[in-house]
Amino acid sequence: MRNPLKKEFSLSLYLEDKRKLINNTLLDIIFLLDEERELISAIKYSLMANGKRLRPVLSIAAFECIEHIEKTDKKDEDFSKLILIPACAIEMIHTYSLIHDDLPAMDDDDLRRGKPTLHKKYSEASAILAGDALLTHAFFILSNPDLLKSKKSLNNDILIKIISIISNAAGINGMVEGQMLDMQSLNKDNSDSLEYLKKMHSLKTGKMIQASVKIGAIAGGASLEEINMLDKYAENIGLAFQIVDDILDIEGDASIIGKPVGSDVANNKMTFPGIIGLEQSKKYAKDLIDDAIAKLKIFGHQALPLHEIANYIIKRNY
Amino acid sequence: MRNPLKKEFSLSLYLEDKRKLINNTLLDIIFLLDEERELISAIKYSLMANGKRLRPVLSIAAFECIEHIEKTDKKDEDFSKLILIPACAIEMIHTYSLIHDDLPAMDDDDLRRGKPTLHKKYSEASAILAGDALLTHAFFILSNPDLLKSKKSLNNDILIKIISIISNAAGINGMVEGQMLDMQSLNKDNSDSLEYLKKMHSLKTGKMIQASVKIGAIAGGASLEEINMLDKYAENIGLAFQIVDDILDIEGDASIIGKPVGSDVANNKMTFPGIIGLEQSKKYAKDLIDDAIAKLKIFGHQALPLHEIANYIIKRNY
Repeated sequence: MRNPLKKEFSLSLYLEDKRKLINNTLLDIIFLLDEERELISAIKYSLMANGKRLRPVLSIAAFECIEHIEKTDKKDEDFSKLILIPACAIEMIHTYSLIHDDLPAMDDDDLRRGKPTLHKKYSEASAILAGDALLTHAFFILSNPDLLKSKKSLNNDILIKIISIISNAAGINGMVEGQMLDMQSLNKDNSDSLEYLKKMHSLKTGKMIQASVKIGAIAGGASLEEINMLDKYAENIGLAFQIVDDILDIEGDASIIGKPVGSDVANNKMTFPGIIGLEQSKKYAKDLIDDAIAKLKIFGHQALPLHEIANYIIKRNY
Repeated sequence: MRNPLKKEFSLSLYLEDKRKLINNTLLDIIFLLDEERELISAIKYSLMANGKRLRPVLSIAAFECIEHIEKTDKKDEDFSKLILIPACAIEMIHTYSLIHDDLPAMDDDDLRRGKPTLHKKYSEASAILAGDALLTHAFFILSNPDLLKSKKSLNNDILIKIISIISNAAGINGMVEGQMLDMQSLNKDNSDSLEYLKKMHSLKTGKMIQASVKIGAIAGGASLEEINMLDKYAENIGLAFQIVDDILDIEGDASIIGKPVGSDVANNKMTFPGIIGLEQSKKYAKDLIDDAIAKLKIFGHQALPLHEIANYIIKRNY
């Protein structure tokens, strides 16, 4: 049942399997550190807080999607480890971004996934430093692919490419600028600007979702055409993910999404339904997902997990 | 006069020359970005704020110190660019650490080098994000060594080593943990613990100074023995630098050091003079510098800049 190549593919089993792999790898990485230290326990609190692991799952699914991998031994545990370290680096960067976004000077959130945010549980200083440490440690594990004593690791040419892709997506021209635009959107009247909203989301979440898929493809040895198709797939699901977030804030179940329904309107946040309406937003998300799925055609049945993840993004309820 | 190999070596001309190189490279890096964006102008405000550039100068001096470089064409501009990008990455990480350390939740400083700190000039959110962006962009430039269109660049094996060294020194087991220990030292009574103070400084500033020297040595193709000697040199000058800082807080000229004299005592900070006394601190710093200089013996006259930098650290008045 866990073989994604079989017809009776179950996304929930696939996700469960991959999340377990990712969580175990993250725990292995933390295990190398001294958990008695406040910095490490703060990092562990946030990193192991029941995340969806969407980004690292995408890295693994893209890695497995690349056709010629089929020719090698997919059951070789060391082989599958090739993508686990980069995938975990992505998750660490995602976690750091949540920690810093929650800070009082930023979104000032007290709760994250039903638990106190890191600065509430520890202190503001610890939260800033835990974020800084997670971001930095992501690049440490990327440049030490044999950290977990795997017999195989990606070669340095590929690692440099991956580091470039991730640092580009996470930084000055990606996620950090997206958060900056998000902060600035509260101060000015952009409430009618669909372009601004799309740009903000593309930078804030889209680029890292694209990077997640791209590093998987590159680690798997994808051709330029394959990379381009997967990149368009990722761009579409990234934007759809954000639109669905906005829709859930109106139609979702507060007990499932983990925050009060209507908080976007209450916080005067720019949203897709706010600009183009609820029905149009739903149609937009569906069109993006349809287009994303069309991009997977060249990969055949090996793209089944990516196909189902795209469907899940639009059908999810949290 | 600017050739470090001549007897009549002038440290001030050497520093002026290297600082110009570093500042121009940093400006070239910023020039590739859109300075109209608040994030970029915030970064530029901090990054170009008249820093001493000690760390990147150390990278260059260590690079030039490695003997066999003499055999290649040192006047080749592209050759000297090999170390400039990694050196600038170090300075960007140093700048991010100052921005985050100054935040209200951390040291809560209003002034840095006589100018308002970034969160005072812009906002707390902008300062957090500018720090995050600088840290991330350091790894972007490290993984894109041809960013400035140099004909030569370090090979990927060396770049991965450099990324590993920097991310290790800056992160969870280095600078970030040092800042954590600094924050924690305010809450507990460690005022008699020389070991705690040394550990804190080793992590907070020492490791990055060691990394600065080490990446220069590695980029220059140093042998293991050469790396070990330079590492010990760097460890010693890093600690001496901190001790001198503490001494200047007692004996310095406020108008030169840029902060009020006695602020450490006022802020109840742990200091070397506070624990071992002023005279013993001076002797300790001098012994460390003497030992650092002894480690340069194997390099001959090519280590003259590193030699003079060690002397400058103990004689500096700011």
